[in-house]
Amino acid sequence: MVKRYLTVTSLPDTLALLRTGFTCTPSCERVELLRAVGRITAGPVFARYSVPEVHLAAMDGIAVLSTETQGAGEQHPVTLKQAVRVNTGNVVPPRYDAVIMIEDVHIDNDRFTIRKAVSPWQHIRPAGEDIGESEMALPSRHRIRPHDIGALAAYGITELEVLTVRIGLIPTGSELVSYGNRPAPGQVVESNTMMAEAMMGTLGATCTRYPVVRDDPAEIRKSLERAVAENDLVIISAGSSAGTKDYTADVIAELGEVLVHGIAIKPGKPAIIGRIDKKPIIGMPGYPLSALTVLREIVTPLIHAFGLPVPSFGLVDARLTVSVPKDIGSDEFLLCTLGLVGDSWVLSPLSRGAGVQMSAVRSNAYLRIPAGAEGCEAGNKVTATLTVSRGEAEKALLITGSHDPLLDYLADTLQQKGVELHSTHVGSMGGIISLKKNECHAAPMHLLAENGDYNIPYLEKYLPDEEIILLCVAERQQGIVSRDGIGFNDLPRHQFINRQRGSGTRMLLDHELTLRGIDPEMIRGYEREVTTHLAVALAVKSGEADAGMCVYSAAKALGLQFIPVATERYEIAFRREHLDDMRVSELCAAIVSPAFKRIMDRLGGYDTRDTGVRRVLP
Amino acid sequence: MVKRYLTVTSLPDTLALLRTGFTCTPSCERVELLRAVGRITAGPVFARYSVPEVHLAAMDGIAVLSTETQGAGEQHPVTLKQAVRVNTGNVVPPRYDAVIMIEDVHIDNDRFTIRKAVSPWQHIRPAGEDIGESEMALPSRHRIRPHDIGALAAYGITELEVLTVRIGLIPTGSELVSYGNRPAPGQVVESNTMMAEAMMGTLGATCTRYPVVRDDPAEIRKSLERAVAENDLVIISAGSSAGTKDYTADVIAELGEVLVHGIAIKPGKPAIIGRIDKKPIIGMPGYPLSALTVLREIVTPLIHAFGLPVPSFGLVDARLTVSVPKDIGSDEFLLCTLGLVGDSWVLSPLSRGAGVQMSAVRSNAYLRIPAGAEGCEAGNKVTATLTVSRGEAEKALLITGSHDPLLDYLADTLQQKGVELHSTHVGSMGGIISLKKNECHAAPMHLLAENGDYNIPYLEKYLPDEEIILLCVAERQQGIVSRDGIGFNDLPRHQFINRQRGSGTRMLLDHELTLRGIDPEMIRGYEREVTTHLAVALAVKSGEADAGMCVYSAAKALGLQFIPVATERYEIAFRREHLDDMRVSELCAAIVSPAFKRIMDRLGGYDTRDTGVRRVLP
Repeated sequence: MVKRYLTVTSLPDTLALLRTGFTCTPSCERVELLRAVGRITAGPVFARYSVPEVHLAAMDGIAVLSTETQGAGEQHPVTLKQAVRVNTGNVVPPRYDAVIMIEDVHIDNDRFTIRKAVSPWQHIRPAGEDIGESEMALPSRHRIRPHDIGALAAYGITELEVLTVRIGLIPTGSELVSYGNRPAPGQVVESNTMMAEAMMGTLGATCTRYPVVRDDPAEIRKSLERAVAENDLVIISAGSSAGTKDYTADVIAELGEVLVHGIAIKPGKPAIIGRIDKKPIIGMPGYPLSALTVLREIVTPLIHAFGLPVPSFGLVDARLTVSVPKDIGSDEFLLCTLGLVGDSWVLSPLSRGAGVQMSAVRSNAYLRIPAGAEGCEAGNKVTATLTVSRGEAEKALLITGSHDPLLDYLADTLQQKGVELHSTHVGSMGGIISLKKNECHAAPMHLLAENGDYNIPYLEKYLPDEEIILLCVAERQQGIVSRDGIGFNDLPRHQFINRQRGSGTRMLLDHELTLRGIDPEMIRGYEREVTTHLAVALAVKSGEADAGMCVYSAAKALGLQFIPVATERYEIAFRREHLDDMRVSELCAAIVSPAFKRIMDRLGGYDTRDTGVRRVLP
Repeated sequence: MVKRYLTVTSLPDTLALLRTGFTCTPSCERVELLRAVGRITAGPVFARYSVPEVHLAAMDGIAVLSTETQGAGEQHPVTLKQAVRVNTGNVVPPRYDAVIMIEDVHIDNDRFTIRKAVSPWQHIRPAGEDIGESEMALPSRHRIRPHDIGALAAYGITELEVLTVRIGLIPTGSELVSYGNRPAPGQVVESNTMMAEAMMGTLGATCTRYPVVRDDPAEIRKSLERAVAENDLVIISAGSSAGTKDYTADVIAELGEVLVHGIAIKPGKPAIIGRIDKKPIIGMPGYPLSALTVLREIVTPLIHAFGLPVPSFGLVDARLTVSVPKDIGSDEFLLCTLGLVGDSWVLSPLSRGAGVQMSAVRSNAYLRIPAGAEGCEAGNKVTATLTVSRGEAEKALLITGSHDPLLDYLADTLQQKGVELHSTHVGSMGGIISLKKNECHAAPMHLLAENGDYNIPYLEKYLPDEEIILLCVAERQQGIVSRDGIGFNDLPRHQFINRQRGSGTRMLLDHELTLRGIDPEMIRGYEREVTTHLAVALAVKSGEADAGMCVYSAAKALGLQFIPVATERYEIAFRREHLDDMRVSELCAAIVSPAFKRIMDRLGGYDTRDTGVRRVLP
């Protein structure tokens, strides 16, 4: 068996190579003005004529010679010898050098009498006031904004030359099905070139996606030759690692040269940089988040080297919520949720799995941990890069704690109020800790205490003397999910799927096991943990497990059987001081809204009689 | 003569009316996934199936039963009874619960031997790791970003329902020529509906522009009836004031009702809000910046009421550079240039003329001065609204002082380096004051002192003990511009156009007049001031004046005669502490670049022998 290893190049060395290894000349195209929004000017744009071209009246009134008005006053009306009626926007006739508003003129047939002198050029829009003939309206490499369009149209511009980079995208992989087809198990929808086209398009590049190519060197070669001929830059998706079916590097080497195979970034390590006919060729890894990282960290700087400006949302200093260990040697890029809690920004890393595209969907920032670092400690100040504007990031409502499918529907409801709910599933206890550290706005929980009450005893213990408001979302039904109606007492005879330690559902399970005298050791799969209700139901549906504990709505969503075990109080806790925070007040309003009640009724398993009930601590 | 007045409604009352006066129901349309970037989801989007659907190998290696590996160690190799070769992405066969990397396996024919036990689920991507079947991938009213596209494609989404508001745009005005035609004097290119289409399009609205309608009530009525039938919202451009040819309000009243005629905002006061068939009808004023303000402050909140989210770039606290007086009663919106000088944000208002579209082109923020305020004082802290991301605003290089056409070309050159040059033309002395107050990065100047030197004596006087670097741009030629070769001594016989007090060109003129014993009183038009070289040349070209003083390049750009008077040193001053600021260092690099020298040679009138020479104070 042949084993090939990558020789990784550091990110700074790779970027230096991108700057020096290619003569990047962008392409140009002429576009009609209205289609130019978001595009990049290829050269400076000049006004074709002055605007206005001649002096215009800025008011409805009369055009006058200012010298004739001298001496006029309340007691000294002057009847003008020379004056002419003008409306706003009319041309001021030659020699006239001021306009008097119609309200200030006494009109008697054709005679105009005034009682106030005027200074020259009053109420006149002089020729060239907006822009002069031949003046530069826009510089080169300017991204055209919507309001630029009106100005350019007024200055006589009907079409203009814009920059682009023609990018050829070649998807490779025998496991790929093309977009629109249902993948069989082990198959994947070819989505990375679609993401690339969407991302590169916003930079002003023009992408061509070529048909999917199987893992066959001859086919890859044929497609690559064509793409190189037709584009300024080619991206080959997947096949860039060093496995037995990774032919990308070999084919590039055959047609040109491989400059880098393996970049010290994570995710995204098995990337390739090659050169064919002086053009850059990028081998992009197949994992979606590896592809995303290579597009952002490697291809985007290359597009910039071609002369296209890259928009930046800027940086934010934030407090990291969890420790992130990492190996020395690679720059690691972590997708994160960023939110403003009180006065300080809080940054929570999302799942690091390179296949978890939802991390990208959920993120609004990312953190780069440099190659030399061994990671970052929880609580440290770090500098995150925004992937949305700061104004958008300020809309984030951070919800950390127990998971319930309702959170997605709350997010959906809140989105309509301009609030973006980001939930992190760390279990009820994790939520209490997060609330204590001021790292979230609100914490959902359902912790059964020995006295039979929910949540309050835990908050009193972990956040003593803090002013906390606890808002009831619903009393929800927990039970045993299965394909064929397994009950709690039957658990020892079946394969189980568990929830993680610290989650309220796990505590409920353990409580029920103790009540009924069942030893956890007797339950096969007790040690296999997942973090959401839906993950439990999915494991049951797929046959991986026979039973698990989850809320009714998760079982119902997948059409599974459900035997109720207990009802528990699912509440959301937040600090009283955040009650005036628009995001938190909208959260409260959403929970008690009739629309949300209808959703809970439809999902099933939620008793909403106590919904909206507030309990206040201390 | 009929005179009609507007009864203005305050902005808060107008916005309240927009929220309560209409039942705004957005329209929906299905779009193909790749065309959905920037559009707004109409409902939540759910994954069609789990991704991955089954457990997959996360590494190249062998799938094993973890129980079989127990007890394996360096000294205790275990040859597995059950194991199967898998590559990354392959389906892990049923019952197998871990993957061992190929590097850690000894292979002998079909026998796999290992020396390390593994825990269950090692190197397996569990089913649903990314997303579970039926899970919500995106909430409603979410603006689709480029990286969402890849995720949705992977989750089986090929097209989706997006929200829109159908907006009908009716341009009215007999003075309008449609886009693409050269306007005669007094005519205007119809550009406001193009700006509206571009602006509203970025919010997710779908615009239809109807043909230009003359100022004729019957024609306006016909167009409006059609637009109301075909759209959710109609905007009538111009005719919204109370002049003799302003029919918009009358026509709306005929077909429905006028709710507001006149809004207490500036610019934008003569706006109309009407209702026909329960649909909102907006009368948008004709001045482009009035139209822009109404689109941003009135139409955008209305689009939001229809359920489309409005992106926000957030707010910035900044120091205002000049006092802005204003009358009480209207909310005034000032377009501004915002930049970061040292550690503090500085905000400079641009021209307030409602016809000056270049103010919009040059702006990156705006300031709202509330109705109750009498204006804002220079030096005050104000809160500006960004119209670009904070990251983009951080690229602004603020240049304040003497004007030269070269500044536009410097802006063009710097744009390629990611620096956005914003120049404010306040004359050389104004630049020195701005530099002193730390309200700009650099100040261009050409101030002739009594000792015959340029600039240094003034900097020593006004910025004593400050460390200043003065970089020579060029020695430039000033002279008399005319249509037919007027010389300096002939000035008293002709109509003159002057530059503003405080400008170096004005000081040079006065110096030359004194030298030659010419009394300024003798020069007709001496009191008529404009602020740029090109404005001087334009006044001469249009016949408004016969002569003026400007640099050679401005005369050459308009094909006018030029008689040289003097050569002067045009230098740019900046604080030494800003030398490390990337924007300032790029400015220095641009000035000495060969490309910029070629531009100066081409424009003419610039002696570049001293270009790049630095003088340091003190």
